Amino acid sequence: MTESLSVEQTARCLCGAEDVLILCHKNPDGDTVGCGSALCAALHSLGKEAAVLCSDPIPARLAFHTPRLFKGQFTPRFVVAVDVASVQLLGEKNGMDRYGRAVDLCIDHHAGNTGYARATLLDAGAAAVAEPLYEIIRAMGVELSAEIADCLYTGLATDTGCFCLPNTTARTHTVAARLIEAGADIGELNARLFATKTPERMEAERIARDHLEYHLGGRFALLWLTRDEIAASGADPAEMEDLPGLPINVAGVRVGVTLRQNPSGSWRVSIRTAGGVDACEIARRLGGGGHPRAAGCELVGCLENAKAAVLAEAAAALAPPAGGL
Amino acid sequence: MTESLSVEQTARCLCGAEDVLILCHKNPDGDTVGCGSALCAALHSLGKEAAVLCSDPIPARLAFHTPRLFKGQFTPRFVVAVDVASVQLLGEKNGMDRYGRAVDLCIDHHAGNTGYARATLLDAGAAAVAEPLYEIIRAMGVELSAEIADCLYTGLATDTGCFCLPNTTARTHTVAARLIEAGADIGELNARLFATKTPERMEAERIARDHLEYHLGGRFALLWLTRDEIAASGADPAEMEDLPGLPINVAGVRVGVTLRQNPSGSWRVSIRTAGGVDACEIARRLGGGGHPRAAGCELVGCLENAKAAVLAEAAAALAPPAGGL
Repeated sequence: MTESLSVEQTARCLCGAEDVLILCHKNPDGDTVGCGSALCAALHSLGKEAAVLCSDPIPARLAFHTPRLFKGQFTPRFVVAVDVASVQLLGEKNGMDRYGRAVDLCIDHHAGNTGYARATLLDAGAAAVAEPLYEIIRAMGVELSAEIADCLYTGLATDTGCFCLPNTTARTHTVAARLIEAGADIGELNARLFATKTPERMEAERIARDHLEYHLGGRFALLWLTRDEIAASGADPAEMEDLPGLPINVAGVRVGVTLRQNPSGSWRVSIRTAGGVDACEIARRLGGGGHPRAAGCELVGCLENAKAAVLAEAAAALAPPAGGL
Repeated sequence: MTESLSVEQTARCLCGAEDVLILCHKNPDGDTVGCGSALCAALHSLGKEAAVLCSDPIPARLAFHTPRLFKGQFTPRFVVAVDVASVQLLGEKNGMDRYGRAVDLCIDHHAGNTGYARATLLDAGAAAVAEPLYEIIRAMGVELSAEIADCLYTGLATDTGCFCLPNTTARTHTVAARLIEAGADIGELNARLFATKTPERMEAERIARDHLEYHLGGRFALLWLTRDEIAASGADPAEMEDLPGLPINVAGVRVGVTLRQNPSGSWRVSIRTAGGVDACEIARRLGGGGHPRAAGCELVGCLENAKAAVLAEAAAALAPPAGGL
C-alpha cells in the first residue's frame, strides 16, 4: 500500500532526496517528458544530482530542452516516477525490471494509478501532471526558470490538446498564465508541438482527404493511405499519428476509421468513436483492442476486404440493439 | 480625433448610456459576436435596453447564445462598436451607412483602428477584445453570468486558435480561468468551435488542399477557393474562418495566404505570417490592414492576377533588406 502525500509533503520529500533518478513512461508524451525535465532542472537548481530515464527515445518535437539523460553517471539513491500509472508503463527496455519495484515516489494524475510506489502524490483532477508539479516545484522553494516553465507548459499544453480538450480547467489556465509570466516561450513551443507540419505530411494528408468517404448515412467515415501513397508523399509515418482524429471530427460521424498500409502490406486500422459507440468492441471483433473512444487492429488482405470488414463491424455497432421495438 | 478611454472611463460611459445599439463587424467572427453578445447581456442585466446589429448573419457555430438582434425595436441613443477597426468593416448592408458616422464608443484591439468613433478604448496588446471587455464588464459592476462567460470565452478562444496562436498571453489565460470559474461551458464551446466540421466544410477543405502551392523556396504557401468551388462543396463560407491558418502551419512557411472568392467575384485575401514577417504591412500595400501576424485585404480581378499581386508583396517582405551585406 502506497503512502499518500500532499504537495507540501512531496516537496519536502524531494528536498531531502539526493542522487535522484526520474522515470518517464514508455512511448513518452509531452507530460511525462516535460515533467521529468522540469523536475530534473528543479533538482539541479538545488545543487542535487538528478537525471531522467525513459524506455524509448524522446521525440524530437518534445526535446525543446532535452533533460540530462541517465546513463549510469551516478548510483540512484531516490527514484521518482512522473506520469506513470503502473510499473508496466515504465517499459521493457529499462526502468521496469531494474527500478519497477524500487520507486520511492510517484507523481501522477491517472485515477487508475496502481499504487506501486512507496509514496504517491495522485492528483486525479489535474489535466496534466504539470499542474501539481508546478505547485510542488514552488513548494520546493525553486525559482521558476524559463526552462522549467517551458517544460511544464509542454506537459500542460500537450495533455489538454492546447487547452481545447474537456479535461482543461480554470486551474489549467491559471498555471499556464504563471508559466508564461515565468518566461515560457509559448510561441515557439506551440509552433513545435501543434502547428507545423512538414510539406510531406501535408501532401500525405491531402491524399488521405481525397479518399475520405462516408457510409451508413454519414455515421461512418473512413479514409486510407496505401504504402505507395505514403512513400510518394515522402512523409514519415511517425508524423501521421494525429491522422486518425480526422474522420471522427466530421459532424454526425460516430465511427471514424483510418487505414494505413504497413510496409509489409497489412493494414493498420485506427478506430475513433463518438456518441457512446465502443471503439474497443469494434477493434476486438477484428482482433485488436484499445480504449472506449480510440482503438485499433491490424488487417491483412486487399484494401476492399479490409474496408468491408471494418464497415460491417461498424454497422453492427451502430445498429439498434436486437429486440428493440 | 477620437477620445481615448481607460477601462474605468469606458465602464462609466456604458453605465450612463441608454438604448444601446451594439455593432459587430461584417463577416462576423467569434470575438465580435462573443463580445457583442456579452456586452448586450451585461447591459440587460443593468436593466438597460440594448441589441446587436451585424451586416451578415451570425454563423451557427457562434450562436451558442444568440444575442438580442436589433430590428428597430427602439431608437438607439448610444452606439457602440466592438472589434471593428474601421467604418468600412461595419459592412455595406446596414450599419456602415446608417451608423458609421454616429459611433459613440468603440472597443477594439486592432492597432490600426482608424479612430472613427467619438471615444475609443483601444487595447492593442489584447489577443481578443474579450480581454478588455472582461475588465470593462467587471468595472461596470455586472455579475459575470455563465452566459456572459460563455460569450467572452468564445471571443478569447476563437481569436487565439484555442490559446495556440502567438498572440496568447498570460493575461489571456488568466481571463480564461476567471471565465471558467464563472461557469463558461468550455467542453461544449470547444467542441462546437473547434472540433467538429460539417461534411461540406471537409469537402471545401479537401478542394483547398488540392490547390496548396509553394513559392519562394517554400517560404510562401498559398491556397484558394473559387466561388464555384465553395458553392459546389455546399459549405457555408462562415464555416471556413480557420482556413487561413492552414498554409502558415507548414514547416518553413513564413507567409501563408488564402484567397477565397466572394460571391461578387472579388478575392478575400487572408495573410498569416511567422518568423517576424509583418502581415499587416503586406496587407496595407494591397489596400488592407490587420495585425502583425494576421491581416487581410480584398482584391478584384482574375485569380492569376490576385495570386501574382500577393506573391510580389510577399517576395518583397521576405527579401533581405536593401543594402544588406
